[in-house]
Amino acid sequence: MRLFTSKTAPNPRRVHVFLAEKGIDVPRVEVDIGSAENRSPAFVARNPLGLVPVLELDDGTHLSESVAICRYFELLQPEPALFGRGAREQAEVEMWNRRVEHEVALPVFATFQMTHDFFKGRLEQVPEYGAVAKRKALARLAWLDGELARREYVAGDAFSIADITLLVAIDFGRVTGIRIAPDQRHLGAWHARVSARPSARA
Amino acid sequence: MRLFTSKTAPNPRRVHVFLAEKGIDVPRVEVDIGSAENRSPAFVARNPLGLVPVLELDDGTHLSESVAICRYFELLQPEPALFGRGAREQAEVEMWNRRVEHEVALPVFATFQMTHDFFKGRLEQVPEYGAVAKRKALARLAWLDGELARREYVAGDAFSIADITLLVAIDFGRVTGIRIAPDQRHLGAWHARVSARPSARA
Repeated sequence: MRLFTSKTAPNPRRVHVFLAEKGIDVPRVEVDIGSAENRSPAFVARNPLGLVPVLELDDGTHLSESVAICRYFELLQPEPALFGRGAREQAEVEMWNRRVEHEVALPVFATFQMTHDFFKGRLEQVPEYGAVAKRKALARLAWLDGELARREYVAGDAFSIADITLLVAIDFGRVTGIRIAPDQRHLGAWHARVSARPSARA
Repeated sequence: MRLFTSKTAPNPRRVHVFLAEKGIDVPRVEVDIGSAENRSPAFVARNPLGLVPVLELDDGTHLSESVAICRYFELLQPEPALFGRGAREQAEVEMWNRRVEHEVALPVFATFQMTHDFFKGRLEQVPEYGAVAKRKALARLAWLDGELARREYVAGDAFSIADITLLVAIDFGRVTGIRIAPDQRHLGAWHARVSARPSARA
């Protein structure tokens, strides 16, 4: 098994942190996104969408999409549970992972894609939409500050994949000036808490 | 248990089709999106994001996000399996559900939100981004036509939630002129196949 991944892109980091939390070590193959190696025929044969990360299994087949790779490892090695336990809690983790993905991570990524020089010539940039996405991400951080006043972690009392998604999104947001505001104390405390976990450096 | 939902919006339809496939009947409460009932204080108390669908459980708590609601029912009643069976297949379904969601459904929804009169004054519209999203959705339908040349359903040989996501996205795409092209025979045959299931009318 090996993971085709990138040290700099945010979605691969979700898998790196997840695996560190599980204590699972998977050999990594660095894909050079800067030189568009992810668009090469060899890579596209692994994932037709040309996106990292991609997990290559021992039978030579491939699995892509960060959350699908995480779920695969959760099913292979259930402990520690990062997708929740039992129907209600698993549904709650799915809900929160999707909320932080759709309300924060995707707007953060859209801000980067629509406004950053890295994507100039790589995709059709509409900077005005990037500005809309940035305002949405910032508004949602204010909302999450209120939510995190009521509990330790995004989806409840236990650390979960939803915390990983939000951590990665917020850290990547720095590139485009999307940051936790000084008065967002609960969100700030949560960020310090999850950043102090050894997995955050994975 | 009751489902706060909408007859016209696409995400609620994902849950309706899913429940029909499961043979589960949940009382529905129609939310009038046209008059912004989903932004009312009563509704926002159920889902702070003001989005349908929302599942109200018997203990009075709420669960939102279509896929989280679907997963909750999958865990309560595993048969027929719509999220796959076993680690590899469940990961494959997750991968494909995310691929059709991110590559087709979200661009279809963005096209609608950014260009349609319904959202005028409801959110900041950037029509130029709607045009980019539309081109992306159309390009991905061409890609999926090739994928569906190799198998019956989106994620493999069995019908899954990934088929529901793609069906709902394509059907909703009609509103903004996103359609299966006549020469996309495999995608067209797949669409006819899934549309013929009784659940498609749920």
